[in-house]
Amino acid sequence: MEYTVKQIADLVGAKVIGDEQILISGINSLDEASPEEISFFADRRYAESLKKTKASAILVSAATDLYKGTQVLVTNPALAYARIAALFSSPAPTHSGISQRAAIHKSAVIGKGVSIFPLVYVGEKVVIGDNVILFPGVFVGDRVRIGNHTVIYPNVTIMQDCLIGNEVIIHAGSVIGSDGFGFVRDEGVNVKIPQIGMVQIDDRVEIGANNCIDRAALGKTWIKSGVKTDNLVQIAHNVVIGEDTVIVAQTGIAGSAAVGRQVVIGGQVGISDHVKIADRVMIGSRSGVPKSLSAGEVVSGTPAMPHRLWLKTRGLITRLPDLVEKLRSLEKKVEELEKRPK
Amino acid sequence: MEYTVKQIADLVGAKVIGDEQILISGINSLDEASPEEISFFADRRYAESLKKTKASAILVSAATDLYKGTQVLVTNPALAYARIAALFSSPAPTHSGISQRAAIHKSAVIGKGVSIFPLVYVGEKVVIGDNVILFPGVFVGDRVRIGNHTVIYPNVTIMQDCLIGNEVIIHAGSVIGSDGFGFVRDEGVNVKIPQIGMVQIDDRVEIGANNCIDRAALGKTWIKSGVKTDNLVQIAHNVVIGEDTVIVAQTGIAGSAAVGRQVVIGGQVGISDHVKIADRVMIGSRSGVPKSLSAGEVVSGTPAMPHRLWLKTRGLITRLPDLVEKLRSLEKKVEELEKRPK
Amino acid sequence: MEYTVKQIADLVGAKVIGDEQILISGINSLDEASPEEISFFADRRYAESLKKTKASAILVSAATDLYKGTQVLVTNPALAYARIAALFSSPAPTHSGISQRAAIHKSAVIGKGVSIFPLVYVGEKVVIGDNVILFPGVFVGDRVRIGNHTVIYPNVTIMQDCLIGNEVIIHAGSVIGSDGFGFVRDEGVNVKIPQIGMVQIDDRVEIGANNCIDRAALGKTWIKSGVKTDNLVQIAHNVVIGEDTVIVAQTGIAGSAAVGRQVVIGGQVGISDHVKIADRVMIGSRSGVPKSLSAGEVVSGTPAMPHRLWLKTRGLITRLPDLVEKLRSLEKKVEELEKRPK
Repeated sequence: MEYTVKQIADLVGAKVIGDEQILISGINSLDEASPEEISFFADRRYAESLKKTKASAILVSAATDLYKGTQVLVTNPALAYARIAALFSSPAPTHSGISQRAAIHKSAVIGKGVSIFPLVYVGEKVVIGDNVILFPGVFVGDRVRIGNHTVIYPNVTIMQDCLIGNEVIIHAGSVIGSDGFGFVRDEGVNVKIPQIGMVQIDDRVEIGANNCIDRAALGKTWIKSGVKTDNLVQIAHNVVIGEDTVIVAQTGIAGSAAVGRQVVIGGQVGISDHVKIADRVMIGSRSGVPKSLSAGEVVSGTPAMPHRLWLKTRGLITRLPDLVEKLRSLEKKVEELEKRPK
Repeated sequence: MEYTVKQIADLVGAKVIGDEQILISGINSLDEASPEEISFFADRRYAESLKKTKASAILVSAATDLYKGTQVLVTNPALAYARIAALFSSPAPTHSGISQRAAIHKSAVIGKGVSIFPLVYVGEKVVIGDNVILFPGVFVGDRVRIGNHTVIYPNVTIMQDCLIGNEVIIHAGSVIGSDGFGFVRDEGVNVKIPQIGMVQIDDRVEIGANNCIDRAALGKTWIKSGVKTDNLVQIAHNVVIGEDTVIVAQTGIAGSAAVGRQVVIGGQVGISDHVKIADRVMIGSRSGVPKSLSAGEVVSGTPAMPHRLWLKTRGLITRLPDLVEKLRSLEKKVEELEKRPK
Repeated sequence: MEYTVKQIADLVGAKVIGDEQILISGINSLDEASPEEISFFADRRYAESLKKTKASAILVSAATDLYKGTQVLVTNPALAYARIAALFSSPAPTHSGISQRAAIHKSAVIGKGVSIFPLVYVGEKVVIGDNVILFPGVFVGDRVRIGNHTVIYPNVTIMQDCLIGNEVIIHAGSVIGSDGFGFVRDEGVNVKIPQIGMVQIDDRVEIGANNCIDRAALGKTWIKSGVKTDNLVQIAHNVVIGEDTVIVAQTGIAGSAAVGRQVVIGGQVGISDHVKIADRVMIGSRSGVPKSLSAGEVVSGTPAMPHRLWLKTRGLITRLPDLVEKLRSLEKKVEELEKRPK
């Protein structure tokens, strides 16, 4: 597909400086763009790339002398880029209709415009909304309900009784509704606590690849609307994640933890069980969070501490040998001083 | 299903104070329980919830004045809860018999009462015991043997020659018997060491979702009876895990490590290769364990240290800037003192 | 299969001391080997095992008095072991030809000698080279190209437009080409940045089980030839990994990081976004790498520091309470000294 610069500018409500009729066939970084492509300048550090780019048009927040081609002025170039990239993304690989090679229980209720690829399994009394896409290898357990416009990528497992909302995306290999990890020790042996709750995933949630979101022991594990998780994230039983919270890869959240809205959690973070993370908290990557955090706190490190304090301690850890040396030297000096006659 | 309180009490060998004939249709937490449900009081911190609960009956270890309904007296309320929850869990989603839409090699030997869902693959000379359930997307490689009453959830991969015991549960997406990570450097290039061993999983093991348990280079990787792993756990080639050990999510155990019986390993722990962890060790979450540990040790931190020491060091890390400040101030004072005439 | 010691020695270009005609049916560790097996002695620490082994022949780098059987002299016993183990590994479980129970789009182009198992999905305009093996549950998205002699294990997902080279191995459950994690905040809501790039995996790469390698936002995520990854590794969008680099389990590499050639990255490491790791760097397990590293650096710890420094600081962390005690004691002594008359 090709679009004129004018068409693109209209999409994001932008003003154009230069030739509006240039045809654009793609979007790319300043360094990689060819003359048929549009690019974007959202970060001062790329000024050199801007000077050299071959792109015929760029998205900028203010007119610039560094570039001679057509400039599309937008308030937020990153946001405009996100919207325009959608024009040029490869078409979602849909399967027309419901494959005869899927295994679908006769009691399942399936909406309009649904694509079910070959090799999908849909269990008893499942309800699937309109325009849903289920890729090959997807397992939908008994009594699961899926809303409208939701896309489930290959080899995803959704166990029985889970609820999946509208416009949800679940990437390949993720497991929703596996048993929570609950055992009682009885004379050295671990007796399983049946996990009789479920997982509820609300609208516009996006779950990365190879995530694990466990079903609740009782009640529900709850991922609220607009949450986005990266890959290999672990969410234990009875966890609640608030609206529009973002969780980066390989983070684990232990049982019954409650995370607020618009929280940002970096990669490889661990959050202990029953901890409460209030709204808009930011947690740096690789932090260990043993205790609850108040609204708006910005923390890093293990144990999690104010981010500024952590920036200091982080450096000091590498200076520990030096500090020990200084301490030893002081001890000797004090010993000498103590020997002086009073 | 509904049960009288008497039926429930008899199941766990409990004494009842109050009306034994009340009908119970579920089990729930104190806060969430409705009048048709039973709940449990196993932790003093929930005394307020106990006063307000709507549950018609509760499991307690000793009669309490805080609650007016029927009390079921049990030695271990958590254990009784586990047993009673099994009454109310949703029925295991079984497929009646062996699906025509599974791909099963003609040389496979399959026991009685087995459920094989559509979209399962069973390889050459596989032996499957009685009452096994294989969910859609399960791959069972050549010559694998699976015991009785074992449940393999969707999209699990079991590579060739592995042995799976009786009453084993493997949650969705886990990979058993992938190649161990072994290479020899030869002039900068990594030459693969063929991994010709296998994985043996003994009776009553439960493996979480999206685990990876690698086959041995030679011999076997061995998960002994009663072991329970949470999600996203990595177990490398030739590791041995002792009976009834518990491993929480996202932990990794490197090659040839040997873990004893009844060990408890928290989440996001790393255990180095060839390390020996003796029986009943407890390892706190996020610990890094570079060295062997003796029976009964309780450790935390990186590097793993006695848990009590770690509780101290953990706090001191955040005080490092303060300590450096104090050290500097002392240095100045000592310098001044040294200037004094002897 | 059985081989004479001579046949085995010829394979690795070795000289034999002792009986060359002994028949060997397997390779095993010194402790586990039976008389029909060959073993290897590559590490002095196993001298006791060498004395007791039942193996009829061993690989050694120099003739030894500790062993009475046939000795096969090789420059690099570990490398010779890797080559010989390949003789005794169980045959790759191939499916003869292309299963009627796979779902293959009619526009796909498939080479000679290809095995496609049942329950595989191959999308539109896919191109598959010669002698490729696709196991059950594999998903190959539209327009994916796969080279010759590549093996894709069960339940692997390869999303649209990705390129997979020759002699590549991808272990079970891995996801190649899922969307990179890119969002722009717009009034508290996360707007998805379409990920319109792809993943390119070059020749002789081996990817472990349950890995996630995200497609690029623009351009490509690039795994260069000879790279080996262990299990549960996360590689984010636009990352580049150089030739023959090795990445151990549960490591995560954030967006746009660039890793050089012949780098060794331990397990559970985190590498921050946009960081550059030069050639032949070695990163110890569990390190956190927030900054770029120069060629040949050897680092460990969080934050990553020279390995030798980390060996010191690691021990000092456990001594922090002791250091604080010493500091306090010094403070008191200095206070006393200051009280002395000048």
